[in-house]
Parts: sequence; C-alpha cells; structure tokens
Amino acid sequence: MSERSYAILGTGALGGFYGARLQQAGLEVHFLLHRDYQHVRQHGLVVESTEGNFTLPQVHAYSDVQDMPRCDVVAVALKTTQNYLLPHLLPAVAKDGGVVLVLQNGLGVEEEVAQIVGPQRVIGGLCFVCANKIGPGRIRQWDYSSIFLAEYSPAYQPTEVTQRLRQIAADFERAAIPIEVGQDLLLARWRKLVWNIPFNGLSVVLNATTAELMANPDARSLVEELMDEVAIAAHRCVGEGSSTENRLITENFIQKLLEDTTRMQPYRTSMKIDYETGRPLEVEAIFGNPLRAAQQAGIDLPKIATLYRQLKFLDARQQIAGTSSHPSSSHSSV
Amino acid sequence: MSERSYAILGTGALGGFYGARLQQAGLEVHFLLHRDYQHVRQHGLVVESTEGNFTLPQVHAYSDVQDMPRCDVVAVALKTTQNYLLPHLLPAVAKDGGVVLVLQNGLGVEEEVAQIVGPQRVIGGLCFVCANKIGPGRIRQWDYSSIFLAEYSPAYQPTEVTQRLRQIAADFERAAIPIEVGQDLLLARWRKLVWNIPFNGLSVVLNATTAELMANPDARSLVEELMDEVAIAAHRCVGEGSSTENRLITENFIQKLLEDTTRMQPYRTSMKIDYETGRPLEVEAIFGNPLRAAQQAGIDLPKIATLYRQLKFLDARQQIAGTSSHPSSSHSSV
Repeated sequence: MSERSYAILGTGALGGFYGARLQQAGLEVHFLLHRDYQHVRQHGLVVESTEGNFTLPQVHAYSDVQDMPRCDVVAVALKTTQNYLLPHLLPAVAKDGGVVLVLQNGLGVEEEVAQIVGPQRVIGGLCFVCANKIGPGRIRQWDYSSIFLAEYSPAYQPTEVTQRLRQIAADFERAAIPIEVGQDLLLARWRKLVWNIPFNGLSVVLNATTAELMANPDARSLVEELMDEVAIAAHRCVGEGSSTENRLITENFIQKLLEDTTRMQPYRTSMKIDYETGRPLEVEAIFGNPLRAAQQAGIDLPKIATLYRQLKFLDARQQIAGTSSHPSSSHSSV
Repeated sequence: MSERSYAILGTGALGGFYGARLQQAGLEVHFLLHRDYQHVRQHGLVVESTEGNFTLPQVHAYSDVQDMPRCDVVAVALKTTQNYLLPHLLPAVAKDGGVVLVLQNGLGVEEEVAQIVGPQRVIGGLCFVCANKIGPGRIRQWDYSSIFLAEYSPAYQPTEVTQRLRQIAADFERAAIPIEVGQDLLLARWRKLVWNIPFNGLSVVLNATTAELMANPDARSLVEELMDEVAIAAHRCVGEGSSTENRLITENFIQKLLEDTTRMQPYRTSMKIDYETGRPLEVEAIFGNPLRAAQQAGIDLPKIATLYRQLKFLDARQQIAGTSSHPSSSHSSV
C-alpha cells in the first residue's frame, strides 16, 4: 500500500471528523452514511474545530455498502450498538489484505471484528476527541483529537508495531491528528474505560455534565471509586500474565485524568448525547464487556455493576418507548 | 396514663393519617402544622382511605409548638430532614414522663431523640403505609396502614414489651390500625430498610415507580442485590451479639417482600415524591446512617454506597437550585 484508501463506516461526529481531515489532507476517503446521505451527497461535509473550520463541498458518499469501492483501511465509526451490521458491512468493503480500524469505545469489539475478517487484519484505534454532530453533515469538534493505535492480536496479547500501523499513523499525522502508536491494545482499552465508565455512566443516570460531576463532592468521590474499580479490573485482566509493570493503571494516571477533566469545558458525554437523542446506549461495549472480563478474572466490580444495571433499565425504557434510533448520527468518543 | 393525649409533629400524609384516625377513635390529638395551618384550622382534616373516607371538621391545630399543650405521646412525623428542629420541639410538647414515638424512616433517629429527652422516653414506630397528601389538610391512603412498635433502649439492645407500649398499641388498635409490638427495634429498622433502600433510592435515580422497577429484569436484579447488601449489613449489625437466630433477615423474607411489591399498585415512593416536589431527600436517615453503621461493623456496602452518592448529588443539585422546602407536607412512609 503506497497510498491507502479509507472507508468510513458511520459518518457521525467521529467518522465525519477524522474522515474529513483525511480527505482534506489529500487521501482518498469513502463515507458510508444513513440519515444524512442525501444532504452530504449534495452539500458535502462541514467541520468546525479548534484548529479552524473547513468545508468539503464534495465527498464520496454512499448509502449502501455494496456501492462502495473496496478500501485498504476500513474505519469502523458506528456506534457499537450497530455492530450487528458488521458481518454484512466489512466483507463488502474491506480490500483483500486490507485492515479494519476499530475506532469505537469499549472493550472486545476487535475480537468481534476478528471473527469476521480474521485476527491478522484488525487494528484498534482509541479516539480522544470531544465532538458532536450539530446538523446534517456538520460536525463540531470541541476539544482534543488524538488517536492511539495498536495492532490487535488474539486474546489481546501485546504485539509489535507493524509497518502498516506506522503507515496508517503517518496518514493521520498528515491530517494533523496527533497519533500515538503502541503495543498494548488491551491496556489502552482499559485506560480509556477509566474515563468512560464513570463519566458516560453517571452523565446519563444523573443527567449531568462532566463539570457538574466534578464540582459535587459526592459525585466526584463516586467517579474516583468507579475509576478505582476499573483499575483493579485492569490489573487483573491486563497486568497478570504480563511481565511488564507498566501495564498497570496507576493512581497518578487517575489523578491526571481527573485534573484534565476539571480543565475541560463542561461536556456532555457521548452516552448522554445518545440518551438525549433517543439512541440506544453503548452499555454492553463500555460496561457489559468489562464486567464480564472482570468476572472471568474472578473479581466483582459492584459499583460498575450498579451503574450497568441502571443504564440497562434506562436504555430499555427509552427504547421500548419507541424513540427511533439512527446509525451514524451525532457521535463523540469520550 | 389512663387516657393518653397525642401530639403529632408534622401533619403530612403520615402524621395526618394516623393522627386523624386517633382523633376519630375518640382520643385527644393536637396537630402541629406549617404550610397548611390556616387551612386546617378553618376546615379540619379530610382522609380518603381504603377503609372509607372521613372528615374531621375541627381539629386542634397549631403553627407554633409553644402554643401546644404538653402531651403524653409525642409522635414525630416530620421528614428526617427536619430533625434539626427536634431539640426545639420535643422539650416544649412532651409531658413529664411522656414518651416520644418516632414514626420516621431510616436508622438512628431514636438515638438522636434519646439525646434530647432521655433514652427511657423513646419508642420506635415503623409505619407500613402508602399515603400521600393530595391537598391542604387532605390525605389519601392507598395501601396498608400497619405499625410496628418497640421500645428503644440504648445501643438498640432488644428490650421488653412494656405496659406503656401496650397502651399505645391499644390506642392505635382502637383506631383500627393493625399493630404489632416487638422487642427488637433495630432488627425491625433494618427489615424496613430492605425495602426502603432499593425502592426509595432507585425510584429517584431512575425516575421510576415500583412497578417499573419490578418489571425490568436489570432493575429487579439490582433491587435484589441492594436488598442482599442490607441483609448482610443487618446480619453484622443486628445478628452478631444476639443469641437468637431469628434476628436475621432471610432470603424468604426478601422474596416475600418482592412478591408483595409486585402485587402493590404502581407506587411513587416517599423519596420520589419528595424529589418531585423539591423537598430535601431523607438520604442520611435511610442511606447514610445504615452505611456508617455497616462501616463501623467492618463491612462495605458498595452498591448502596453508589446509590447514596448518586442521591446526595441529586439532592444537592436540587436544593442549590433553590426549590423551597416545607416541613409537614406530602409524606408517605415507604
């Protein structure tokens, strides 16, 4: 692959933002859309961001994966609640020898993708970005934009930084996206859960922004207690069986995350936006899978389990109430 | 005391319902009111109940405890969030040798009252009643009405069924209130918490009725898990140091409670009504005190602690938002 082509599955805030940046940097990008297809086909994409605004008047837009060309890199930017579509989508759009780049939140998605395209063709990407879709084909990025990339290997064993990983990293760097490559995808996933579990969960259950949660002593304590449970689980699920001490999540890491969150502007998490807009919540990827992984490792996470059940209740009630859901709409990664 | 006089501190759903029934049965009852004082003074009390409706056109109504006669039995039917008033109220209205009957929810209130009037003058009463105040001086009882009565003794040690306890029980029985007297106030308080902790807490955090919680598998599981934590705490806080095996909260007790709740009509808990009407939540009496008792006994209750912090957050946010609060308004005991 000298010049890689990209397919973006799910052109919400996340897929739209990164895809548009890649196209702006001169790469070939193909966007799968659902609700916004007609609008984007006619008007392209608009990105407002901390580094300036830009418009792509013309993009390769598709409403059906069968119409898309096969691409070198297929970026999965759907909500995980849409992942039942992947067995249909991925084989249609991934080039022979191409890779699938999982940009979603939560734990265990790479394993699902590996079962569809094979374990040698999966890369994990963790997006640290605050972005929302603010209108059809219109994305607003508020804060951060970096991505952590690592190869997936079966059972999430640490692995090499491959040549193809460096090439994909170089593409994003060409689009001025800060990129870190690493060898330990599982640890990276758990580290991101340290933030996502308390803030996504409590923002929905307590109808609160990150700033409200950080400002209240009880909510902040609960955030820290939930983070501690994630760290304990990570220690068991990642740390054991590893020879490297740095696979653990330290107290320093947690404190740094809390300080960073305090400095962020008040933020509605992706799960809160999903809830407010009537979309299904990514409860299984962000809560259910980590809980089951911890359980298999022999540990209970009672506070996370409480939040999980609360979210399942709220999600079920809302979905039963019949609010329609749409793939690839407003989306942010934290 | 041949014919006891009663003071009702807090004429909401609870105090209004039981006080009106006592007066209807011919006993002398004096009602302390706040917001409804003028209305009740002019129009009396109206009770709608499962056993028929009745009106008391004239009641002894007071807006200031200093105007009340000293009574033999002072029934505390305020919200526990108003208990900072008790050092002012109780000495003014309790007759020498009279007793204070604590009808409130939660744990530890009798200890507070004992510090004001002395440990020999405190009786605990646990009300099993679904009732709301539906207008000024107007109370609707929906379900149940029974009271469990037991003497308080220091450190909640089991104690005798005294003569005065039987006399008070007889007064309520005269008013056709089902009464059970017992020797173990602490166990009774913990047993009531088995219901109050999950249903009061989750009804507020998840904005749900009892029926909604029971109908959803995740919410119902969480209810049971919270009940199990209460049972574990009760086992340590009540069971140890006791020689009687039947002081424990059994799985049968929990299953019976769940079945009874399923049979109840959909019910907004007292804490949910408080939250909806902008009143402070009884978080410390129902959650904080049991958590601290369990902690002193050396056990964590992580799921209850999660709910506690969530409720503290919601309560603080609502109170900061400045919704005014009133004592002795709508009140139900479960």
